[in-house]
Amino acid sequence: LPDDSNVIVYPANVLVSVTARVLSGLGAPSDLASLVAESLVLSNLVGHDSHGFIRLIEYSGWVKAGHLQPGARPSVAWTKGATTLIDGRWGWGQAAAALGARHTIDAAREHGTATVVLSRSHHVGRLGEWVDMIAAEGLMGLAFCNTGGAAVAPHGGTARVMGTNPFAWSMPGADDVNLVLDFSTAMIAAGKVVLAAMSGGAIPPGALLDRAGRPTTRAADLDDGGSLLAFGQHKGSGLSMLIDVAAGLLAGTLPAAISQSGYGNGTVFLAVDVARYVAPDSVAAVSRQFANIVHESAPAATGPVLLPGELEARTRAKRAVDGISVPAGVRREVAQLAEKLGVNLPEFA
Amino acid sequence: LPDDSNVIVYPANVLVSVTARVLSGLGAPSDLASLVAESLVLSNLVGHDSHGFIRLIEYSGWVKAGHLQPGARPSVAWTKGATTLIDGRWGWGQAAAALGARHTIDAAREHGTATVVLSRSHHVGRLGEWVDMIAAEGLMGLAFCNTGGAAVAPHGGTARVMGTNPFAWSMPGADDVNLVLDFSTAMIAAGKVVLAAMSGGAIPPGALLDRAGRPTTRAADLDDGGSLLAFGQHKGSGLSMLIDVAAGLLAGTLPAAISQSGYGNGTVFLAVDVARYVAPDSVAAVSRQFANIVHESAPAATGPVLLPGELEARTRAKRAVDGISVPAGVRREVAQLAEKLGVNLPEFA
Repeated sequence: LPDDSNVIVYPANVLVSVTARVLSGLGAPSDLASLVAESLVLSNLVGHDSHGFIRLIEYSGWVKAGHLQPGARPSVAWTKGATTLIDGRWGWGQAAAALGARHTIDAAREHGTATVVLSRSHHVGRLGEWVDMIAAEGLMGLAFCNTGGAAVAPHGGTARVMGTNPFAWSMPGADDVNLVLDFSTAMIAAGKVVLAAMSGGAIPPGALLDRAGRPTTRAADLDDGGSLLAFGQHKGSGLSMLIDVAAGLLAGTLPAAISQSGYGNGTVFLAVDVARYVAPDSVAAVSRQFANIVHESAPAATGPVLLPGELEARTRAKRAVDGISVPAGVRREVAQLAEKLGVNLPEFA
Repeated sequence: LPDDSNVIVYPANVLVSVTARVLSGLGAPSDLASLVAESLVLSNLVGHDSHGFIRLIEYSGWVKAGHLQPGARPSVAWTKGATTLIDGRWGWGQAAAALGARHTIDAAREHGTATVVLSRSHHVGRLGEWVDMIAAEGLMGLAFCNTGGAAVAPHGGTARVMGTNPFAWSMPGADDVNLVLDFSTAMIAAGKVVLAAMSGGAIPPGALLDRAGRPTTRAADLDDGGSLLAFGQHKGSGLSMLIDVAAGLLAGTLPAAISQSGYGNGTVFLAVDVARYVAPDSVAAVSRQFANIVHESAPAATGPVLLPGELEARTRAKRAVDGISVPAGVRREVAQLAEKLGVNLPEFA
C-alpha cells in the first residue's frame, strides 16, 4: 500500500511516458496508449490521484481476465440526427470517451444539441475531463455513467443496488476556467473505504451500512457484506437510481444490480450549443460576475469559496510546475506490474 | 395560516373549477385558466400541496405588481435544428412549460434529442409534471430552472447566492409509472422554513445559517438575514450553482444573485428518444426488474423502498378516489382573494 513517507516528485510528462509504456506492455497500440496515459495523468495533475495512473493495476487485471481488449478501437456504431452510439468494443474506455466527446461537440454544433452514448465501454476515467473538453468549445456538457458492481443501498434500503454512478456537468466559464462539476453519487468513494479498512480505520458516519443494514463507521464492514450510502439522502439516492436505469438502458450495460458484470461504464454525454441562446461575450461576463459573488460569499478571513472545478484548475496549474508526488507504494506496484510485462521502468526502479 | 383542525375534503375537479375561476378573475383567458388550474391541482393530487392551488395567492401578487401578464400567450421565439426558444412573455409559467414540453417531445422524436429553453417565464409549477409528461411519451426527460431571489449559500459560504433551483429527471417506467425524480437543491423548501417561523418553531440542523453565517435551527433566522443551505454539501451546492448559471444564461434570466428580480423561472428541458437506443419492451422489462430489486432492498418488516415518483403516483391514485383535504386557512385565503376579484366561490364560503 502507498507509503507516504517515501515520496518522489515527477514531472507529468515522465508519468505519461511511464504509463504509456506499461499500457503498451498490456497490448495497447501506441496511439491509444498515449491517449489513455494522458487521461490518467491528467487526473493526477488536477489532484484526483485515485483516478490517476494507479488505475493501471486495475486495468491489467481486466486485460488478464479477458474483459478488456487492449487492441480494440472504438467506432461510431450509428449516427442519426442529433443522436449517436459509440461502440467501445470493450477496449480502453478513455478512447471511447474521447471519440464520444469529440462527436458530442461536432453534433451539438450542427444540431444545437446532441446525445452520444458509449456502449461496451470500460472505465472512462474522470467524467470531469470530458465535460471540461465540451465546455472548452463553448458548449454546456452533461455526462453520467453507471458503474459495474452494485455497491450503494437506496435511501431507506439496506442492500446493495446501485453503482457509485458519477454525474458531471459543465458550462463555459470566464478566463479559461470552466465550471466543471463532477461527483460520485456515493457519499464517499469505495476506494477510500477500502484504504481505510486496510489501515484498520474508521470512516465518517452516514456513508456506510454493515451487512445487517445498520449504520457503521467501521470501514471493514464494506467488504464484510455492507453497503455504501448515497450522498444527499433521498435526493442523491434518486440521482443514482436514474443514472443506473438511464445509462444502463441507453448504453445496454443494464443497471448494476441486474447485469452483475462488475465492470464497464454505460456512459451518456449530452451537450447544448450555448451560443445559440446567448453570445459568448455575455457568457464570459456573467460567469466572471457570478464567480466573484461566490468567491466573496464567505468572510474574508475564511478565504474565497471556490466554484465547481476551480480547485482542480488551481491544482493543475500548481502541479504542472511543481510536479506530481508519487508514494513509494504506488511506484512499487507499478514497477512490479511493469516487470511482469517485461517493460523496462528505470524511473521507478 | 392553514388551520388543520377544520379540513374539508374536495374532489379534484371541484378544486380545478375553483382555481380556474379565480385565475379568470385575475385576467387569464379561459383556456389558460384551465391549463394552469389543472397543473396546480395536479400538485395537490400527487401530494405536494405547497405547489398546489394555494399558489394563487402568490400569483395574484405578481399580477397586481404588474410582473405577470395574465392575458399573455407563450409562443415559439425560434426553432433551429434540435434547439428551441419559447418566449413566455411573462405570462403564466405553466402555459410556457406545457408548450415547451410539447415541443421537447416533438423535437426529440424528430432529431433523437432536443433542448427547449423557456425565457420570460413565471413559475412553471412542479418540474416533475413536465418530465413525467416527457417520459409518458417514451423519452428520457431532464428539466432544471433557476428561481428568482437568491436564498441559498454556497457550500463554505455564508451569504445568499443561489435560488432554490430545482432539478428533475425522468425515464419511462413499467406499468405506466415512470421514474420521476424532482427535487429542490435547497436542503428544505423556503416555504417550510417560513411556516415553521410563523409557529415559532425550529427546523432540523444542517439546513439554515443565521445572518452571521452560523448554523441555526431557529426558523425565524431565515427572514432575519439568514441563508438556506444546499442539500448534499459541496455536491448539491455545485448542482445549484450549475443550474443558476446554465439556466440563467440560456434563458436570459441571469443567475439570481445577479438579476435580483425576485421572480421568474429560467427553465431548460432536454429529452432523448430512448427508442433509438433500446426497444420499449426492454425498457419496460428492465424497469420492472429494477423496481422489484429496489422495493425488496429493505427488510420485509420495513416495507418496500420506493423509487423516485412512486410515492407521488400512489398518492395521486388515492386522492383521485378519496379527494383532497383543504384546511380552513387555505380556504379562507383563497375565498378572500376571490371576493376581492368579484369571483363567486360558494364552495369555499
